[in-house]
Amino acid sequence: MTKKAVILVSGGLDSSTVLAMAKQQGFDCYTLSFDYGQRHRSELFAAAKVSEAMQVEAHKVVSLDLGTIGGSALTDTNIDVPEYETSGIPVTYVPARNTVFLSIALGWAEVLGANDIFVGVNAVDYSGYPDCRPDYINAFEQMANLATKAGVEGNKLTVHAPLIDMTKGQIIQAGIKIGVDYSVTVSCYQADEQGAACGVCDSCRLRKQGFIDAGLKDPTRYKNSA
Amino acid sequence: MTKKAVILVSGGLDSSTVLAMAKQQGFDCYTLSFDYGQRHRSELFAAAKVSEAMQVEAHKVVSLDLGTIGGSALTDTNIDVPEYETSGIPVTYVPARNTVFLSIALGWAEVLGANDIFVGVNAVDYSGYPDCRPDYINAFEQMANLATKAGVEGNKLTVHAPLIDMTKGQIIQAGIKIGVDYSVTVSCYQADEQGAACGVCDSCRLRKQGFIDAGLKDPTRYKNSA
Repeated sequence: MTKKAVILVSGGLDSSTVLAMAKQQGFDCYTLSFDYGQRHRSELFAAAKVSEAMQVEAHKVVSLDLGTIGGSALTDTNIDVPEYETSGIPVTYVPARNTVFLSIALGWAEVLGANDIFVGVNAVDYSGYPDCRPDYINAFEQMANLATKAGVEGNKLTVHAPLIDMTKGQIIQAGIKIGVDYSVTVSCYQADEQGAACGVCDSCRLRKQGFIDAGLKDPTRYKNSA
Repeated sequence: MTKKAVILVSGGLDSSTVLAMAKQQGFDCYTLSFDYGQRHRSELFAAAKVSEAMQVEAHKVVSLDLGTIGGSALTDTNIDVPEYETSGIPVTYVPARNTVFLSIALGWAEVLGANDIFVGVNAVDYSGYPDCRPDYINAFEQMANLATKAGVEGNKLTVHAPLIDMTKGQIIQAGIKIGVDYSVTVSCYQADEQGAACGVCDSCRLRKQGFIDAGLKDPTRYKNSA
């Protein structure tokens, strides 16, 4: 009998790698993305493409208007996406985003009868985001096991964050080994509609450096100006 | 200096009482409701009415398509709302709903700089819902303090669930004492557009019994047939 898992996919490099890892571990994969008012909407197309390429059982997109509560450069058009982050928590941080996304994944897992959720959070490259740390993931898992029917009935739910301690270079190396095609993934905070990246935002710089560190050719499509 | 609090309001009896309690404790109240594909949409009108009557600082409605993941009679039109629940977890349970709602409240609290969230969960009348138990609320609070900027910076976030151990009768008595007008609140799972209740669903029966137990007149508007 195969086991079901819900995988949060953004269309980006990290979550695409996580999806490939879940598949390699033999899970039937159900991918979940969010239309949450993000500026970089091309990530939704990338999430669908990646899901199709990896032959998932189903890919769902949940609409969620996080722009209503504001507070992030990614959903609030009054806040500019900076080219270089200062220290501390970045303005691209979306308040409680991972908590909200994991909660909805938890709901879907419950509907599917899945006991496993995979998420591409990473504590190394995103040290400024509080909800990318191992302590946070453990606390979410504990809460989740008290929140649901499955938990009440004794089926332990596990939140897998396999990238949490990996550098971007290590993630890319691991993904290439199991056949991830990074050319269809989009990481840029302000990619154009065709998914071409700006090349200068924080997310682009991390990704570029990742391919350099991994010693691999960068297949990312950049805008002409970048 | 007044303190800000985010209060989850559904337009129902419990959350309206909680809002009145938060106001009485001197909080500046920010109310949050969800348009989540629920059948009983009149609750959104009730939530707005209650928020206005209690002169909150702001009331926001976040759109969230929980119907996408299905699994509940409240969002899935393929599942009937039963008149009488059998034992165990009811079909009206929406998978991970409280977790999802509290997570978005957490995001708004972070944007507002609020350290307090109020929620009307109740372990007595809703013993079948895993996410209405004290252990769950404590686990959510612990997770929340690891998830956010505020937690990282040492501002403890508190999740208040003042009704958790109260019976419906006790809740109504407490609310009446601090001036809650229950005639504008809607609890029914299948209220009509004007907010008139069916009188027979689980939620209606609990509410009716609550007024009887409290020894108070029931101001609920019922449909003609009920």
